[in-house]
Amino acid sequence: MALKVTTTNRVPAFLAMAVMNATRELEATGVDVIHLEVGQPSTPPPVAVNAALTTALGEVATHGYSLAFGEMTLRRRIAGHYADYYGAAADPAKIAITPGSSLGFALAFLAAFDHGDRIAVTTPGYPAYRNLMLAMGLTPVQMPARAAEGWMPSLEALEASGEPLPDGMLIASPANPTGVVMSDDEVKAVCEWCHRKGVRLIMDEIYHGLTFEGTPTTALLHSDSVIIVNSFSKYFCMTGWRVGWAIFPDELVETVERLAQNLYIGPPKPMQAGAIAAFDDYGALNLHVDRYRENRDILMRGLPEDFLGETAPCNGAFYLYADIGALETSPDSIALAEAMLREAGVACTPGVDFDQEQGHRHMRLSFAGSTAHMKEASRRISDWLPKYLKSR
Amino acid sequence: MALKVTTTNRVPAFLAMAVMNATRELEATGVDVIHLEVGQPSTPPPVAVNAALTTALGEVATHGYSLAFGEMTLRRRIAGHYADYYGAAADPAKIAITPGSSLGFALAFLAAFDHGDRIAVTTPGYPAYRNLMLAMGLTPVQMPARAAEGWMPSLEALEASGEPLPDGMLIASPANPTGVVMSDDEVKAVCEWCHRKGVRLIMDEIYHGLTFEGTPTTALLHSDSVIIVNSFSKYFCMTGWRVGWAIFPDELVETVERLAQNLYIGPPKPMQAGAIAAFDDYGALNLHVDRYRENRDILMRGLPEDFLGETAPCNGAFYLYADIGALETSPDSIALAEAMLREAGVACTPGVDFDQEQGHRHMRLSFAGSTAHMKEASRRISDWLPKYLKSR
Repeated sequence: MALKVTTTNRVPAFLAMAVMNATRELEATGVDVIHLEVGQPSTPPPVAVNAALTTALGEVATHGYSLAFGEMTLRRRIAGHYADYYGAAADPAKIAITPGSSLGFALAFLAAFDHGDRIAVTTPGYPAYRNLMLAMGLTPVQMPARAAEGWMPSLEALEASGEPLPDGMLIASPANPTGVVMSDDEVKAVCEWCHRKGVRLIMDEIYHGLTFEGTPTTALLHSDSVIIVNSFSKYFCMTGWRVGWAIFPDELVETVERLAQNLYIGPPKPMQAGAIAAFDDYGALNLHVDRYRENRDILMRGLPEDFLGETAPCNGAFYLYADIGALETSPDSIALAEAMLREAGVACTPGVDFDQEQGHRHMRLSFAGSTAHMKEASRRISDWLPKYLKSR
Repeated sequence: MALKVTTTNRVPAFLAMAVMNATRELEATGVDVIHLEVGQPSTPPPVAVNAALTTALGEVATHGYSLAFGEMTLRRRIAGHYADYYGAAADPAKIAITPGSSLGFALAFLAAFDHGDRIAVTTPGYPAYRNLMLAMGLTPVQMPARAAEGWMPSLEALEASGEPLPDGMLIASPANPTGVVMSDDEVKAVCEWCHRKGVRLIMDEIYHGLTFEGTPTTALLHSDSVIIVNSFSKYFCMTGWRVGWAIFPDELVETVERLAQNLYIGPPKPMQAGAIAAFDDYGALNLHVDRYRENRDILMRGLPEDFLGETAPCNGAFYLYADIGALETSPDSIALAEAMLREAGVACTPGVDFDQEQGHRHMRLSFAGSTAHMKEASRRISDWLPKYLKSR
């Protein structure tokens, strides 16, 4: 008898995986590769975080289950962060510590929607949004936010599409892969529109803290119905810890708590004991932000203009989203990424996973690495590109 | 406009939560409570585990993303455990490190089944199995494994039910809440039956290691199609770390890997760096098992016979499943648990979450605590019960 394998919950492979595997193979042969493909900081968490974790390991209670929403001490500390950082009042009872922000999205999808519901999601965008929706039986609805749309999703276009409004909407600002940051007015407008139209808004604020012109507003200040997702991964340099948080509106809290209990019981307790120290020194964290800003400027100045193309205005996160469309008549970001890896020793991420329609003409360059690496990457790409184009 | 809240993915509250909240309230007033309600070890992980984690924190790489299936070093170490412990060959390529075993089940459910599929699950059983199935649009099918069935699910009864065979089956051995351990022949028979009938078997082996009469076989030795779920939580005393593993059959590996990437990216890297040291000293871990055995015997000898009732034969895990049915004409395990907490200062878990039909006549007593606490709990319950019954 054939045994069951899902026929509906399959998610597509990351096309960029081919480039990542090639990168590993190349490095294994001793080639020195500059990594512009990584979506994580190159620096460790604040020293206080490691110290707090190490101290906590000596306590038996550190090794036991956490509450489903996580330890109240950490939830209060996060509420304090909203007060200090945004002047926003966050209720610790509505903050869930999650094992990474990914599971914050999973909880949001399960708690707010039903099988078959439609959720509008920005294109280009983080591919796991769409894939996780598909795996959970939800229907992603594409909202273009490309150069032609000023890199911003258009609510007017959604209303004018002739389709019924979606049940939910997911937006990230600062955005991956573009680095685009919504203005405070834009955040407010989306919050109000969604609330008014009965569209459940999920705001991905995971790149908050990593902005180069001031501190953007949090959607929490503009909506009682929004779900906020955030994490210690990016600004706090704790990617591998897998600790995130989400803030849920009143009417979802109880449902989410039960789902969390059954989906993962509770977030890891030792990691929470460390994470509570992450907020102790914004100054140290902001030094990384200064470096990212400098790195962005190095790439913007140092990379060939026709390689950058009509780059999205990058005011946050640590990504440049280059438009390679003018380089060739049939741009192919996967082929270009592979050639650039092998011939120039620079790895980056082709746009195809972020944008199924137009990703072939885009490349995501991460500048989370060192300033020296950014200079070297600019030099390598600038030397290599003319030769490559000539050989075509 | 009303905003979406799921209408289908709600999961029931744990009824035992009322007793747990009452326990916390009582302790807050200074009352000394003996905890027989906890489902986790009372002892910390092996010293080597904390040391390995602390050392790893000094490396930048420790703080970055892990592969979706986890670090290959840990997967190889787990494969070594299967060789050492069971004489079984486990392929590291098919072992996924998961953020707790709960997400191992989530991956298994998503990868092997489609919306509406039916999965047979033992009753009484761990309530999150059923709740997670409901949240994911799957249909749990009850397989009674109560005293009348010799505490074992009956495949014959399933075949004779007149219903089509289920798409999947989930069995735990040692079982929660009963502590019942399947014989090697029974494990083999279930594996072969499921494989032959085209029923996808998920074996929960999370309480492996915690057995009082020898080492049971792993289903991995008896089936090419089984999904094995296990964890560092119980035998290795690392509940709060949320690190588990699952072994998937060939035909599911790629689907699971993509789902893991999108559901949680990868398991926490620092926790994996510690967990690799968990296998270094089985001798120290087995001292805990000796204590659990002694604790079980203390409770079996010390608790009133009519309170224990027709207790399931507990040869593993750290639970006694008492049958209070003979105590009163209308047994009510929640009321009894509440009275025992307030009047005797002993907390335990009513059976209602484990068994919606007959849980009112059962109580789960965890003996994961200290030997001294087991003696004190026996004394308190023995003193209190006659007075309680007389007052009714």
